[in-house]
Amino acid sequence: MELSEFQRLIDDTYGAKDRARGLPSTFLWFVEEVGELARAVNGRTSRDNLEHELADVLAWLTTVASIAGVDLDAVATRRYGAGCPRCGGRPCACAEQRRRPEPVEP
Amino acid sequence: MELSEFQRLIDDTYGAKDRARGLPSTFLWFVEEVGELARAVNGRTSRDNLEHELADVLAWLTTVASIAGVDLDAVATRRYGAGCPRCGGRPCACAEQRRRPEPVEP
Repeated sequence: MELSEFQRLIDDTYGAKDRARGLPSTFLWFVEEVGELARAVNGRTSRDNLEHELADVLAWLTTVASIAGVDLDAVATRRYGAGCPRCGGRPCACAEQRRRPEPVEP
Repeated sequence: MELSEFQRLIDDTYGAKDRARGLPSTFLWFVEEVGELARAVNGRTSRDNLEHELADVLAWLTTVASIAGVDLDAVATRRYGAGCPRCGGRPCACAEQRRRPEPVEP
């Protein structure tokens, strides 16, 4: 599906409710879904649940974009369509800067 | 752009790095971007930054899906393509259950 079509589909389904609730409160619902996705990524649920949570986070992200009046497809294409926004590479050739190593596994 | 095409584009650009880093660590990068989006939604940055953070969260979400071997387009279409997964409506007719009212503004 086109990303813009998915954003429109979610807006048709939930837009009126989401606009009535407002942006800050809708963002909290999005974060709630991010927490559910974390649980699935952490291996605490089923494969089916992981897929479902990925879809839910995407749906809430498009709703946040819709309430804010942002065309997610347009901004994503503008930012990533020509490769990495920093180095221009595809694949990206940026060095990953992390100042602290991960703790050693016990 | 097709959602599946965007997922592939991000995978071409960052997939090798992201797979090497692994799913839990890549999820942390996604959450870092969610925090940056929160800051923009909270009105603490520019409109341009809000658009940029929405694109970044989408990019990291597709990377999380790719590392987990999930086709985001397929699962999102399956879950939302026929309207609300709970009530089947488009628009959704589910009652929003919130047990605690929002605190009154000071």
